[in-house]
Amino acid sequence: MLNFQFHNPTRIVFGKDTVPALDELIPGDARVLILYGGQSAERTGTLAEVRKALGDRAHYEFGGIEPNPSFETLTQAVEQVRFHNIDYLLAVGGGSVIDGTKFVAAAAKFVGDSWQILETVGGAVRDALPFGAVLTLSATGSEMNFNAVVTRKATQTKALFASPHVFPQFSILDPSKTFTVPARQLANGVVDAFTHVVEQYLTYPVDARVQDRFAEGLLQTLIEIGPTVVSQPPDYQSRANMMWAATMALNGLIGAGVPQDWATHLVGHELTVLHGLDHAQTLAILLPSMLDARRDGKRAKLLQYAERVWHITADSEDERIDLAIEKTRAFFEDLGVKTRLSDYGIQAEAIDGLVEQLGLHGMTRLGERQDVTLEVSRTVLEASL
Amino acid sequence: MLNFQFHNPTRIVFGKDTVPALDELIPGDARVLILYGGQSAERTGTLAEVRKALGDRAHYEFGGIEPNPSFETLTQAVEQVRFHNIDYLLAVGGGSVIDGTKFVAAAAKFVGDSWQILETVGGAVRDALPFGAVLTLSATGSEMNFNAVVTRKATQTKALFASPHVFPQFSILDPSKTFTVPARQLANGVVDAFTHVVEQYLTYPVDARVQDRFAEGLLQTLIEIGPTVVSQPPDYQSRANMMWAATMALNGLIGAGVPQDWATHLVGHELTVLHGLDHAQTLAILLPSMLDARRDGKRAKLLQYAERVWHITADSEDERIDLAIEKTRAFFEDLGVKTRLSDYGIQAEAIDGLVEQLGLHGMTRLGERQDVTLEVSRTVLEASL
Repeated sequence: MLNFQFHNPTRIVFGKDTVPALDELIPGDARVLILYGGQSAERTGTLAEVRKALGDRAHYEFGGIEPNPSFETLTQAVEQVRFHNIDYLLAVGGGSVIDGTKFVAAAAKFVGDSWQILETVGGAVRDALPFGAVLTLSATGSEMNFNAVVTRKATQTKALFASPHVFPQFSILDPSKTFTVPARQLANGVVDAFTHVVEQYLTYPVDARVQDRFAEGLLQTLIEIGPTVVSQPPDYQSRANMMWAATMALNGLIGAGVPQDWATHLVGHELTVLHGLDHAQTLAILLPSMLDARRDGKRAKLLQYAERVWHITADSEDERIDLAIEKTRAFFEDLGVKTRLSDYGIQAEAIDGLVEQLGLHGMTRLGERQDVTLEVSRTVLEASL
Repeated sequence: MLNFQFHNPTRIVFGKDTVPALDELIPGDARVLILYGGQSAERTGTLAEVRKALGDRAHYEFGGIEPNPSFETLTQAVEQVRFHNIDYLLAVGGGSVIDGTKFVAAAAKFVGDSWQILETVGGAVRDALPFGAVLTLSATGSEMNFNAVVTRKATQTKALFASPHVFPQFSILDPSKTFTVPARQLANGVVDAFTHVVEQYLTYPVDARVQDRFAEGLLQTLIEIGPTVVSQPPDYQSRANMMWAATMALNGLIGAGVPQDWATHLVGHELTVLHGLDHAQTLAILLPSMLDARRDGKRAKLLQYAERVWHITADSEDERIDLAIEKTRAFFEDLGVKTRLSDYGIQAEAIDGLVEQLGLHGMTRLGERQDVTLEVSRTVLEASL
């Protein structure tokens, strides 16, 4: 096991009918800005519930945070914060809204050009407004971590920042809030959470048994419940398991003391920026080819994954690995998330542009061994056609 | 899954050579009281390392906190805190020292008779001194939770308290600090952690898949590494896995959203107080008979435990349950922890006294269904002879 620090102070309030807890979670004299995405927050009644729970606290609203939240939109929210003298933020939505809120929280306290927050991966953040979240979509884990991804439209850049100042103070996780989420977003959520686990698990062994077992438990859970979540009428228990699995997939726990990969995510970001694919679609396309292309470096963990997650024990090592990758791809496809670039109309001639963008963004040595060069990324993209 | 709140702000600093981190973790102007147990903290050099890391902070020391820390001893430490105007506590030791430090932290800020802290299970605690821990023994999980058990010698009472005010601010977990721990304490630690998991897992199903998989992962890890930890020369990786498994076994995570039992612990406390057995010895004695006596209420989870933890799938339900309980007992015995009352010289005539004490302490409806009456406890004790 590698040395590590683990610290996660976010309070989780999990279960049915938990939105009213906002009244105890937010200071009584707070001036609150509610941040949300599209119209569904209003239509489903969640915003009304939130307003009611806030009681007579002064509160304002900022809607329209898009999927892959943009620096440009969020900068408008920061202006609202300053204009209304806001001292508490409340994200109501999924990962994009929460990521955006993290940026607003940091930018509101930042002196200088707030894009610097992203250029230095958050090292520039010295303070942030306190905030909480009401989660309405399970996927990114943003509700219990200090990471955020923000897109600058002007330069076609998707940038990550991370700072302990932007842990949510609390997150309310009511699984029934996901009952109205469309199937495409539900499926994306399963793929996203699954890939988060794989990026922290499928590297090389360091004898971190608890982390491995936890990661395998999350993968098994997602495999068990994913099809039900996506294809069956909403039921509380499978949504609850989905929600808790997605939160645990990226709250720092399973990644503590182990190597981490993240090449699939980082190459995928370019696909989203250049071709507009959903984040999870990029993962579903790239992960199988990424595992295949890097099977030698990942051999021991791929075999462990095959055995413990997919119960594959027969045949040669490479056959077991082949089958595990095939089952991973079939799992994504069965959820309705296509796994080939060509399924999204992206052809071979797009690859040069993608590799060029990776180079421009410095993504030249990715993965747990920093051996995913531009050449390897090109191979992976070609194998994903 | 049941509704739950989860909040655990303790910072974990895990790995080799992490004691010097104290210098960053404790405020530079703190007046520190170091609390520890026996002479081993000095003999092994850990106290010297701690003193060095504290640099020129004013610090005092209070040794002699016993296993099953006593109210009487801890009250002396509270006097030291007041006399030296201490504003930060540092526990150096295992669960007893950390539990004791939690009590001292709360009692130092308490107005009135500090035994009230224990009589009201911590509800009386409104504030506590900040404190951290340097863990030298893996077992109780006290390093990352807000529970403590304190014994009042005068009345032969072992009392629990719990308060969010007594989360450690940080815990330093250096697995190599356990290299000098005697085999008996190592074995006790494995049994203690194992039973912590079982008390939160082996109840009745509520479709909490992540919690179940995590619990099973911890049990499998303890089964894999327990014998190595106890019987082989110290090696870093198995001690690291032991340390992290024991911490995760009782930090609130696997118990969030599921029913909990704790009857084995609560009956065991009387064995410790009346007969002086090690805490883990009481668990090793009682757990197998407790599972056996309550097999009907626990049937579904016992079968899941048999299959997923011990890989038992053949034969009838009751045969599988029998075998799982037998394997549990054999695991404890193989670690060198005897599982019968008679192994410790306790005979049938002691049972009346134990049941009487349970009644006096109000332990009349224990377990996840509150159906462990005094009569059930008597049956379990008789089956444990």
